[in-house]
Amino acid sequence: MPAKRRVTIALIAEEAGVSIPTVSKVINGRPEVAPETRHRVERLLHEHGYQRRTSQDDTPSGLVDLVFAEIESPWAMEIVRGAESAARDAGASVVMSVLHTHAGPGRDWLDRLASRRTDGVVVVASKLSTGVQAQLSARSLPFVVVDPEGEPAPGVVSVGATNWHGGLAATRHLLELGHRRVAMISGPADMLCSQARVDGYRAALETAGVEVDPALIRRGTFLVDSGHDQGHALLSLPDPPTAIFAGSDLMAFGVFEAARQRGLRVPEDLSVVGFDDLPLSKSAWPPLTTVRQPLQEMAALATRTVLAMKRGEAPESRRVELATDLIVRESTAALVKPEA
Amino acid sequence: MPAKRRVTIALIAEEAGVSIPTVSKVINGRPEVAPETRHRVERLLHEHGYQRRTSQDDTPSGLVDLVFAEIESPWAMEIVRGAESAARDAGASVVMSVLHTHAGPGRDWLDRLASRRTDGVVVVASKLSTGVQAQLSARSLPFVVVDPEGEPAPGVVSVGATNWHGGLAATRHLLELGHRRVAMISGPADMLCSQARVDGYRAALETAGVEVDPALIRRGTFLVDSGHDQGHALLSLPDPPTAIFAGSDLMAFGVFEAARQRGLRVPEDLSVVGFDDLPLSKSAWPPLTTVRQPLQEMAALATRTVLAMKRGEAPESRRVELATDLIVRESTAALVKPEA
Repeated sequence: MPAKRRVTIALIAEEAGVSIPTVSKVINGRPEVAPETRHRVERLLHEHGYQRRTSQDDTPSGLVDLVFAEIESPWAMEIVRGAESAARDAGASVVMSVLHTHAGPGRDWLDRLASRRTDGVVVVASKLSTGVQAQLSARSLPFVVVDPEGEPAPGVVSVGATNWHGGLAATRHLLELGHRRVAMISGPADMLCSQARVDGYRAALETAGVEVDPALIRRGTFLVDSGHDQGHALLSLPDPPTAIFAGSDLMAFGVFEAARQRGLRVPEDLSVVGFDDLPLSKSAWPPLTTVRQPLQEMAALATRTVLAMKRGEAPESRRVELATDLIVRESTAALVKPEA
Repeated sequence: MPAKRRVTIALIAEEAGVSIPTVSKVINGRPEVAPETRHRVERLLHEHGYQRRTSQDDTPSGLVDLVFAEIESPWAMEIVRGAESAARDAGASVVMSVLHTHAGPGRDWLDRLASRRTDGVVVVASKLSTGVQAQLSARSLPFVVVDPEGEPAPGVVSVGATNWHGGLAATRHLLELGHRRVAMISGPADMLCSQARVDGYRAALETAGVEVDPALIRRGTFLVDSGHDQGHALLSLPDPPTAIFAGSDLMAFGVFEAARQRGLRVPEDLSVVGFDDLPLSKSAWPPLTTVRQPLQEMAALATRTVLAMKRGEAPESRRVELATDLIVRESTAALVKPEA
């Protein structure tokens, strides 16, 4: 890799076959550069490892971008609350973007971003292609990922919860209540947080000497409907589970619905554990036993980290996981053995 | 009122005892003016009805501010979705602020706003003092209120739903099912939308010749806990209601909880209607009969209106109310007369 300090705007301009002011415009995210030219200059800036010098343009804009794939779940509201609160404490404001795709930020979003200044980007539960990473780097924009969808690229800073431990704690709780047919409804397979919860579930069963039955592991979307559908699928098995660990509170609500439609009572006939601890979950019927993840704190930490990186501070760690807690309420009960 | 065209920056500067560049800075929302000076200049700009001339500074910033008193309810998420979507369609982005007070935007928020550019402000379910209105006007910033907390000042543009009609439809539905002891849990008394729902409820009772019993009208906060508390209060009356119309879906969930705690079944022993139609309400148990208000459309309309005002277009109307719809699900049933 060439020494970074030698890379000048003049060099980039020459290689790109454009003027020096054009390169400056790309770096400063001005909109008046043709998309094709901007892409070429951004690629060269990234390839040469260009580092922007401190200048007046580095005064904070007071804006942090918060980017969601979707905001269908009240889960997203907790993230917004945490990010907004941390930004406000720092005298900044949060710009919301919803991509409506799990494919990650694309050209549209980058073009809108280029038309204004921002101090950094918090990407929530979404992919972040190397192309987008390069484009953010070319503009010297720090970014942090909350609950990365896949394995983040080397050097990408991310914040999450102790999902594996949460899966372990939820499943242990059910085992301690005497359940042996314990099912799990996971989230999307390509999300890291989802996979970690399933692995915690497996680990709890294995350390308790309970065989992992692949028929009892189903995949959902984290939303209510998939909990309902997978709940029905599990409860219609020849040897159905007596307990279901759902990878999100919304899916647990869907399981509640499926159980009632089949005339099963929660927790007398079926124990259910969720994951998240949404504000509504304590008012569910029955109040939901769940694994609390500190969503507001995760978002606040990501926001504070991005703002610190903007000030030139190195993040404390490339990956931080905040603790999860099992909250026992009324949707779980000891297994009543059928009379012989 | 003096003719507006004569008011110049020089005049304001003279009256305020400051330089012309200082007045310009205030108008352009630059941060380097002392707060006291800024207040004085803003007041004079407002008093004189200063109108900013079209200039380069009037090119859109691509940002719309969305200001909430609180974002505790999934209700707020629907507003965010609508505003974000409308902004994106216009190539703009949404900046979120949460005030954590129902007293409306204050100096803190204005100071943060002054440190950057914005194309306009959408204020949600919050007060908007004449002082803040003056300060937004001084900076030629258009603003629209969604669900105004109190009666908006003359000239303030607002968007809401047909709350009165919604209250009427919900109550008529219960009357048609044979209920006569119909209670209502309203939202905060100082919110216009809340008052309109109560008046719709009263109108339905009165036109049906059913006496309005003040003991059956209780006040909540729109959140779950108040539905729970007021539900208990109503159900412990000597002559309790057989149906409850809650002014929000969250309060209806609280009523569900109170009913279950008293061993009452919904809808067999108690019919419940909500207001909002949150995404979760169709998955509630039982699925909630409710009045749908088009929250996303309301927020989208407010956002489009602010952006149009920024372009110099006059809003179509000072007040627009979008239609509400009664959605009948499974939380309401015909009154079963006790056997004589």
